[in-house]
Amino acid sequence: MLMRGLPKPETLQAAFENHLQRFFAQHQASFRYGEMLEPIFYDLCEFVGRKGKRIRPLLFLLTHRALGGEKPENDEGLLDCAVALELLHSFILIHDDVIDRSETRRGLPTFHKLAERRLSVLSAAERTGRNVAIVVGDMVFALAVKTLHEADVEPVVRNEMVSQFLAYAADTGGGEIFDVLMGVRDITRVSAEDVAKMYYLKTTRYTFEAPCVMGAMLAGVGKAQVEALRRVTEPLGLAFQIDNDLQEFARFVSGDLSSSADLLEGKKTFLMLEAYEHLDEVDRTFLQMCLSAPTRTESTILKIQGLVRKADAVSRLRNRSLELFSKAESAVADEAWTEAQQLGLAEVFRAVRSRFTALSTRAV
Amino acid sequence: MLMRGLPKPETLQAAFENHLQRFFAQHQASFRYGEMLEPIFYDLCEFVGRKGKRIRPLLFLLTHRALGGEKPENDEGLLDCAVALELLHSFILIHDDVIDRSETRRGLPTFHKLAERRLSVLSAAERTGRNVAIVVGDMVFALAVKTLHEADVEPVVRNEMVSQFLAYAADTGGGEIFDVLMGVRDITRVSAEDVAKMYYLKTTRYTFEAPCVMGAMLAGVGKAQVEALRRVTEPLGLAFQIDNDLQEFARFVSGDLSSSADLLEGKKTFLMLEAYEHLDEVDRTFLQMCLSAPTRTESTILKIQGLVRKADAVSRLRNRSLELFSKAESAVADEAWTEAQQLGLAEVFRAVRSRFTALSTRAV
Repeated sequence: MLMRGLPKPETLQAAFENHLQRFFAQHQASFRYGEMLEPIFYDLCEFVGRKGKRIRPLLFLLTHRALGGEKPENDEGLLDCAVALELLHSFILIHDDVIDRSETRRGLPTFHKLAERRLSVLSAAERTGRNVAIVVGDMVFALAVKTLHEADVEPVVRNEMVSQFLAYAADTGGGEIFDVLMGVRDITRVSAEDVAKMYYLKTTRYTFEAPCVMGAMLAGVGKAQVEALRRVTEPLGLAFQIDNDLQEFARFVSGDLSSSADLLEGKKTFLMLEAYEHLDEVDRTFLQMCLSAPTRTESTILKIQGLVRKADAVSRLRNRSLELFSKAESAVADEAWTEAQQLGLAEVFRAVRSRFTALSTRAV
Repeated sequence: MLMRGLPKPETLQAAFENHLQRFFAQHQASFRYGEMLEPIFYDLCEFVGRKGKRIRPLLFLLTHRALGGEKPENDEGLLDCAVALELLHSFILIHDDVIDRSETRRGLPTFHKLAERRLSVLSAAERTGRNVAIVVGDMVFALAVKTLHEADVEPVVRNEMVSQFLAYAADTGGGEIFDVLMGVRDITRVSAEDVAKMYYLKTTRYTFEAPCVMGAMLAGVGKAQVEALRRVTEPLGLAFQIDNDLQEFARFVSGDLSSSADLLEGKKTFLMLEAYEHLDEVDRTFLQMCLSAPTRTESTILKIQGLVRKADAVSRLRNRSLELFSKAESAVADEAWTEAQQLGLAEVFRAVRSRFTALSTRAV
């Protein structure tokens, strides 16, 4: 049960999806670069329109409301800010998928794979598909910033929001490079702190902090309250990321290889670090070799699974995730907020968490 | 001789280069993502700091002054806007070079090649270098928008400038996709109009129109005057692009293969279109085959050169470029501007043109 005044996430998501469809209908004209580019625009609408968890728009709209902001369902300005956050996410996914050469996203082809299909008659379709996706990602980023910059909300706050939004985007890039560089680094030279810092920059900042901080700013709260929010979103983001690692691993164990890009790429996830830390010397060396090989075969992956089990890494991390959720929960009880605000925020994070858990096996 | 009050391009460029160095020194802290990323920041400073023609910053600062704006040399706000334009250009170059897999830029390694060198011990250095460059490009774009958004200039105009800047960036993306798609299309299905439209979107908009329009907006001119500017920059941009094609071809004929990415990639440049249009059926078929092959060998390239000569495409295009420069010159004599403004603008475009011609064999 949500507290009185806080809209149900389902109602809010429906309003958001409607607004997103209207947004694309309005922006079709600005993508009129001739018939060659039309199919690419339709692919983009389909890609962004895929039903994901919409964590960022919902977190933004709910936090804004919980801290005393206006009813969000029919507010065009607020919904545009929410669209900007979702477009930022889409841009990041499009480039991320090119970088990782992932083939599926939310159970359907990644954007560069969609572009590749459009070009399937060509010999260079694969590379051309990735090239188109790099540029479409850039355009979506430009559109995200433009949407926020022109949103019909209080101009002084909006100005500050645009600055923050761009700083979040840059940090996400910093985290992404971190991820790429750690991916090619030997596991013996990567620490759990490195991984935590990488995820903080790459995911937590734009997924949890940006929506909450922007929602709070528009609700008119002060600096101390914004700072207090960051003390909630940092453990929350880390907890979600660990959950994400665990869910990916569970899907993988159940036989769904397509959603296991991280494992296939040999990424240094929390799970790998946790396993590595709790194995003996022989097993460590083996894990190290598996991860540093240029590609991983099915039997290598099965061996990695075995080592993860042997180190009891899953239950260790599950406990760590629960601890972090508790830490976030305690941080909500901060005197920077009124009691009503604390109740509202606790409600928001519970709603987002249950949503994440319920949908996470379908979409990431 | 420049008219009184209009600073010399050399003086202005010196002020710009100084400001750019200070800018990077100030922004070093915001790139502090740990020791792993430090070398990448230094590579970025070197890349952006390379002495190019700086057409965009100079065009912005000179147009602003010619239309009655303040002296630009010591104005931090104006210089920040100029930096934003140069960063937009750097971002576009970084992604463009990844897409074309170019190896040199301004006589030095492209950004992804710099990143690749940093990673040279790795087996996947080449791909990882490109991945790093994709993300660094994204971060530079974010930094460009942020710099403009936070520049100390008149806030109402700045707001409108940010919207325009983002629209220009999106159009550049549209032109880039156009370019990618035309690159893999058969020359029989590409028209000179397509190529002109592609260059207008991909280059003219952000290289000529954006700096001039933004300079004019800050100088406080009205809508009609901004519209009149666009009638100058459109033929000017096309003329520069044709010159660029011709210069690349000349460098290539003189034996400098490294600066001929377009030819090596089989791009549909004005030169190729012009040659194709003026050849007989047999030669056309041959040119078509040369361009559509997955890669071009030295002997293919020599054959293409021969066909370009046979069609007399170089002198035809040189005439076309001169016509377009004249068209731009006539468009300056527009009653939307005062006589002093007309004289100033004519001076600006002459200065940029001579600068372009003088430096063009060194850097693009």
